[in-house]
Amino acid sequence: MQRSNGRGNHELRPVKITRKFTNIPEGSVLIEIGETRVLCTASIEEKVPHFQKGTGKGWVTAEYAMIPRATQTRTQREASKGKLTGRTMEIQRLIGRALRSVIDLKKLGERTIWLDCDVLQADGGTRTASITGAYVAMMDAVQFLLEKKLIKANPVLDSLAAVSVGKVLGTGVLDLEYEEDSQAEVDMNIVMTGSGKFVEIQGTAEEVPFDREDLNNFLELAEKGIRSLMDVQKSALETNT
Amino acid sequence: MQRSNGRGNHELRPVKITRKFTNIPEGSVLIEIGETRVLCTASIEEKVPHFQKGTGKGWVTAEYAMIPRATQTRTQREASKGKLTGRTMEIQRLIGRALRSVIDLKKLGERTIWLDCDVLQADGGTRTASITGAYVAMMDAVQFLLEKKLIKANPVLDSLAAVSVGKVLGTGVLDLEYEEDSQAEVDMNIVMTGSGKFVEIQGTAEEVPFDREDLNNFLELAEKGIRSLMDVQKSALETNT
Amino acid sequence: MQRSNGRGNHELRPVKITRKFTNIPEGSVLIEIGETRVLCTASIEEKVPHFQKGTGKGWVTAEYAMIPRATQTRTQREASKGKLTGRTMEIQRLIGRALRSVIDLKKLGERTIWLDCDVLQADGGTRTASITGAYVAMMDAVQFLLEKKLIKANPVLDSLAAVSVGKVLGTGVLDLEYEEDSQAEVDMNIVMTGSGKFVEIQGTAEEVPFDREDLNNFLELAEKGIRSLMDVQKSALETNT
Amino acid sequence: MQRSNGRGNHELRPVKITRKFTNIPEGSVLIEIGETRVLCTASIEEKVPHFQKGTGKGWVTAEYAMIPRATQTRTQREASKGKLTGRTMEIQRLIGRALRSVIDLKKLGERTIWLDCDVLQADGGTRTASITGAYVAMMDAVQFLLEKKLIKANPVLDSLAAVSVGKVLGTGVLDLEYEEDSQAEVDMNIVMTGSGKFVEIQGTAEEVPFDREDLNNFLELAEKGIRSLMDVQKSALETNT
Amino acid sequence: MQRSNGRGNHELRPVKITRKFTNIPEGSVLIEIGETRVLCTASIEEKVPHFQKGTGKGWVTAEYAMIPRATQTRTQREASKGKLTGRTMEIQRLIGRALRSVIDLKKLGERTIWLDCDVLQADGGTRTASITGAYVAMMDAVQFLLEKKLIKANPVLDSLAAVSVGKVLGTGVLDLEYEEDSQAEVDMNIVMTGSGKFVEIQGTAEEVPFDREDLNNFLELAEKGIRSLMDVQKSALETNT
Amino acid sequence: MQRSNGRGNHELRPVKITRKFTNIPEGSVLIEIGETRVLCTASIEEKVPHFQKGTGKGWVTAEYAMIPRATQTRTQREASKGKLTGRTMEIQRLIGRALRSVIDLKKLGERTIWLDCDVLQADGGTRTASITGAYVAMMDAVQFLLEKKLIKANPVLDSLAAVSVGKVLGTGVLDLEYEEDSQAEVDMNIVMTGSGKFVEIQGTAEEVPFDREDLNNFLELAEKGIRSLMDVQKSALETNT
Repeated sequence: MQRSNGRGNHELRPVKITRKFTNIPEGSVLIEIGETRVLCTASIEEKVPHFQKGTGKGWVTAEYAMIPRATQTRTQREASKGKLTGRTMEIQRLIGRALRSVIDLKKLGERTIWLDCDVLQADGGTRTASITGAYVAMMDAVQFLLEKKLIKANPVLDSLAAVSVGKVLGTGVLDLEYEEDSQAEVDMNIVMTGSGKFVEIQGTAEEVPFDREDLNNFLELAEKGIRSLMDVQKSALETNT
Repeated sequence: MQRSNGRGNHELRPVKITRKFTNIPEGSVLIEIGETRVLCTASIEEKVPHFQKGTGKGWVTAEYAMIPRATQTRTQREASKGKLTGRTMEIQRLIGRALRSVIDLKKLGERTIWLDCDVLQADGGTRTASITGAYVAMMDAVQFLLEKKLIKANPVLDSLAAVSVGKVLGTGVLDLEYEEDSQAEVDMNIVMTGSGKFVEIQGTAEEVPFDREDLNNFLELAEKGIRSLMDVQKSALETNT
Repeated sequence: MQRSNGRGNHELRPVKITRKFTNIPEGSVLIEIGETRVLCTASIEEKVPHFQKGTGKGWVTAEYAMIPRATQTRTQREASKGKLTGRTMEIQRLIGRALRSVIDLKKLGERTIWLDCDVLQADGGTRTASITGAYVAMMDAVQFLLEKKLIKANPVLDSLAAVSVGKVLGTGVLDLEYEEDSQAEVDMNIVMTGSGKFVEIQGTAEEVPFDREDLNNFLELAEKGIRSLMDVQKSALETNT
Repeated sequence: MQRSNGRGNHELRPVKITRKFTNIPEGSVLIEIGETRVLCTASIEEKVPHFQKGTGKGWVTAEYAMIPRATQTRTQREASKGKLTGRTMEIQRLIGRALRSVIDLKKLGERTIWLDCDVLQADGGTRTASITGAYVAMMDAVQFLLEKKLIKANPVLDSLAAVSVGKVLGTGVLDLEYEEDSQAEVDMNIVMTGSGKFVEIQGTAEEVPFDREDLNNFLELAEKGIRSLMDVQKSALETNT
Repeated sequence: MQRSNGRGNHELRPVKITRKFTNIPEGSVLIEIGETRVLCTASIEEKVPHFQKGTGKGWVTAEYAMIPRATQTRTQREASKGKLTGRTMEIQRLIGRALRSVIDLKKLGERTIWLDCDVLQADGGTRTASITGAYVAMMDAVQFLLEKKLIKANPVLDSLAAVSVGKVLGTGVLDLEYEEDSQAEVDMNIVMTGSGKFVEIQGTAEEVPFDREDLNNFLELAEKGIRSLMDVQKSALETNT
Repeated sequence: MQRSNGRGNHELRPVKITRKFTNIPEGSVLIEIGETRVLCTASIEEKVPHFQKGTGKGWVTAEYAMIPRATQTRTQREASKGKLTGRTMEIQRLIGRALRSVIDLKKLGERTIWLDCDVLQADGGTRTASITGAYVAMMDAVQFLLEKKLIKANPVLDSLAAVSVGKVLGTGVLDLEYEEDSQAEVDMNIVMTGSGKFVEIQGTAEEVPFDREDLNNFLELAEKGIRSLMDVQKSALETNT
């Protein structure tokens, strides 16, 4: 299989993470993976949803949207349609769940971190890019809380990143572009922690079911890709801004 | 870990599939898995969604709902709220995708099979029970099409069933009840074909991330459970109604 | 006029009432009238709508829905459309009003009984079957309250059932099937108490207006039908479950 | 029972019908019954709903609304809430059904008459006033069609009016004001044709069920009231405007 | 340019203001400007929106709607569509803002005056007629508050009226009818106080941009028109009702 | 009055226009005015709204949104609320109307240019920045059409830019920041063409009405500001990208 820009099957596209992309939010990260670009902001709100009230625990939640022309043909705005699509709901639930898995809500205290992932350009992998970028934005928001002495201890338990893998024309590949994704036989999104454990595995056979051997191959590709993404996260977080 | 009714960790709850539960639909299946009960109907409509028009291909799609008192405390009706929850959307997308994976849409011709999964009582595993039951309802609808000579060849490529697995109190278990599900560390839904391949793997670490060994354990539990479910499907389909 | 199964104009279809059809709700009744089947559940909620707060009085309310393939051709789900039709609103308002007419809300105390009527199969008379079945479900919920000593005295003032009557091909008939209903000249729904009084009379001339003589005939048919329905209710309630 | 302005139990409030209240619609009628005032407009649209297309038949339909301060305390606008209440749907379905009962849709031809009933002030009986007023507006719209030679024959089969009756403090009364309506034991709306037949009977026991004798009394009160309303309709229609 | 009824370019259509058009609201004004007729009611509510709570300040807000057949062809009801159009939102925001500019919210106290502007017939200039009429309705509501001694001092700071001006076929004209409005090159709405100052200027070049000289001409036309409208307001308010 | 960064009352904040900010759309412009940043994309769609079909004319329309954390405190997403606010509708109608005023829809042919203005950070003047940026994005889309030979002649009639002016603490100022805007006595948005004519004037007295002298002062400030903005537009359009 021949990939664009001579990329190998086990290679990520170029990844770039820019912190403080905008100045107002507590965390504001532009993540670029190839042509995919997602603006992830983290906002602290000093209250929690009703189901968490009085528990002493905080909350982390995510919202996801695409600007209409993030895609090749313009997509109608969900605000104009008056409702979210199933795809959007599925993605924002995934992002929120993933981020909550690496934070101690007790240590966060009764406040919410909102992670807004707005896709400025979409070329495949927007949900995994959102998770990878939102982690960095959340880290900046947590840093803000620590500096303002609003929390005493860092509630983040582990680092977190996500990547897509799949099977295209019979071959396992890492980090699918839109073109590859639309012809993939299997499409899988994997979220892992810094300690190398799984937080989410979501694999779908679009047309051809897959077997255990395929699965093992996908997991290896994903693990390597996530390692590389974590290196970029780490060096972004070490940079002074 | 002690399970209700002395069930082993690798055992399914009692499974019962009743065909022709109601008389109007082309397929009408009540599936009971322990206390979970889902009515799955299959309806044939002689048209396809706009994106499929003129392609010669058919469509298979699913909708999922719970009656308000399927659950321990009454859940507000989505029709009264005026919108579907993210959970419902996620589930009905999953059911539709799973069923489409074992049907040749070309052979189905330009018509739609609607699979409506209405949960009458919910005690965990409603989405996987829906897939397992909807497969039987779809088979009856396909039989109807064959008998009416509306299609020439059977478009169903393989059988299909689904089950949940998870980790509760550190132990891998098959087919979680609601009580177990609400305290599970890991929750995974697996959809497989009769030929033993994966169609969907959706695993979520609710609090504790999981490793490769856990995953392998989950997949083995699931495989055995799905084999048993397929036996029940088969014997239901062989019964005259 | 020739009716299906040789039924006389003044005869009901076969009626069957099954209590505890599902196990979770305080009341759960499957009512079958010919091919019409409605699952009526009663759920107790320990709060009342805002207009009843602080009055010491309870509330009884109903919701009504059909599963999509209750009907000959699949009906779109109201939850998917995002709103209730006028027909649904009209029916659920009628059911709630009817049931409230035979309960002393003061004796019920500040709690709500929700009556959910979910039509599994529709062959005419679903709204009257819902009332007749919901009465039995409400009785079970009241029994639950008495047994748990949440209320001291039985708040139910009288029994209640409902039936449809109409004029088809110039003849007055009791308990219309869908086929009859769709060609009826007059369609009337009547709700009566055990003491033989009217709670609701809703008569509509679909094409040909009716006179006093017709009306008297309809009321006599209805009265006899409702007596029979009350016998079935009574014997269902006397059965141990 | 003492009624306001010394009105007898069998007497209507003062009734006034003003045609051409506004100039744009094909029919525009202000009906005043005591303090209740409804503006009924009739609009002709040269198309029919999809279910009537190609049948050669027309359609008559109604919409009902109240301005926010038609009532003693301001009612929130349904357009602001984003949905119609059950009460509004029930009323507009009733008005449309009633008017359709006296028109030959075949003679009307494939066009729609919209009857918009906007309540400017509400003091009880708005739905029956709407029917009585809408009949006059519809007559003007039909006259318009005849004059423009868009139809050859008058499609109106009979005249039509409606009134409320009820039982207040144990006494049967005609044409209830808001104050009476809110304390009525029984509330009944009756729609009749000029030939003295019933089109709709909708009776509800708010608290105390009623018997056959009550019903007969209600029907007699209604019949007299409707006769008087038809006199006012007739003289309004005979006046040159 | 030839205007209907021989009206000069700088002349208003006939203006008529009727107070107490309906009896229930604290203020109820029918304003007629040519064929345009708007019913403006003022309703006092003893609470304020959440953003004003505890400030000691009141609120004035407006809602605007047209009955469906206010227009030449019937316009679908916004309540039936389930949402307000952008035009309606824009207009009701304008009316509310304009009225708030002449009232001291501190003196009004923590209560709301709702101004509902319901267009019964539309022939151009409905938003400016709404402002001019709503001012009179608000004055009656304020008078009610003074008489009931709910407020001590009159909170109204100045009088207020509004008019449209525009350029039609190259000529500046005052108070455009619908026919003129639909072919106007420039359309401008101006709201002024009794002391001759501007509260709102909203000018839009529909096709041909305008220059400073045009603008000066528009403002002079508007000023004269508003003076005349204020005379009608004043004499309406001086009339005993 | 002391402005931030020592800015004079007649001075704009630093303005920067970046073309091809994203790569997919036909036009993609990031406009930064001080801390305000708006991403304006232009998308060509080869169809027109129904009211324009068959006229041979095209259409230009705009949508406007803010990402949730464009503002100091997070604003709820309109897509989550399920409807657009009045403010959003007002702004997107203004942007569309402004851009249509400088394009010959006949020359554009039956196609639509969508202008999506997504605010990434908001510090006052987002609607005027959107117009100024959308003009540049529209120019790139027109250039695309010319290069692809989809149109023969340039349909753009004139250049276009917009700016806000206002009165803060009694002084007229150009290009208000959020902080100034929130305390302004008068707030005015002005849209002008390259030939120095007005397309829109929208002035609102927030608390203190303004007079002719104020207005003249505002218009002069605006004119100078718009000249400067047009210089930036021009130099951005001359740059090769």
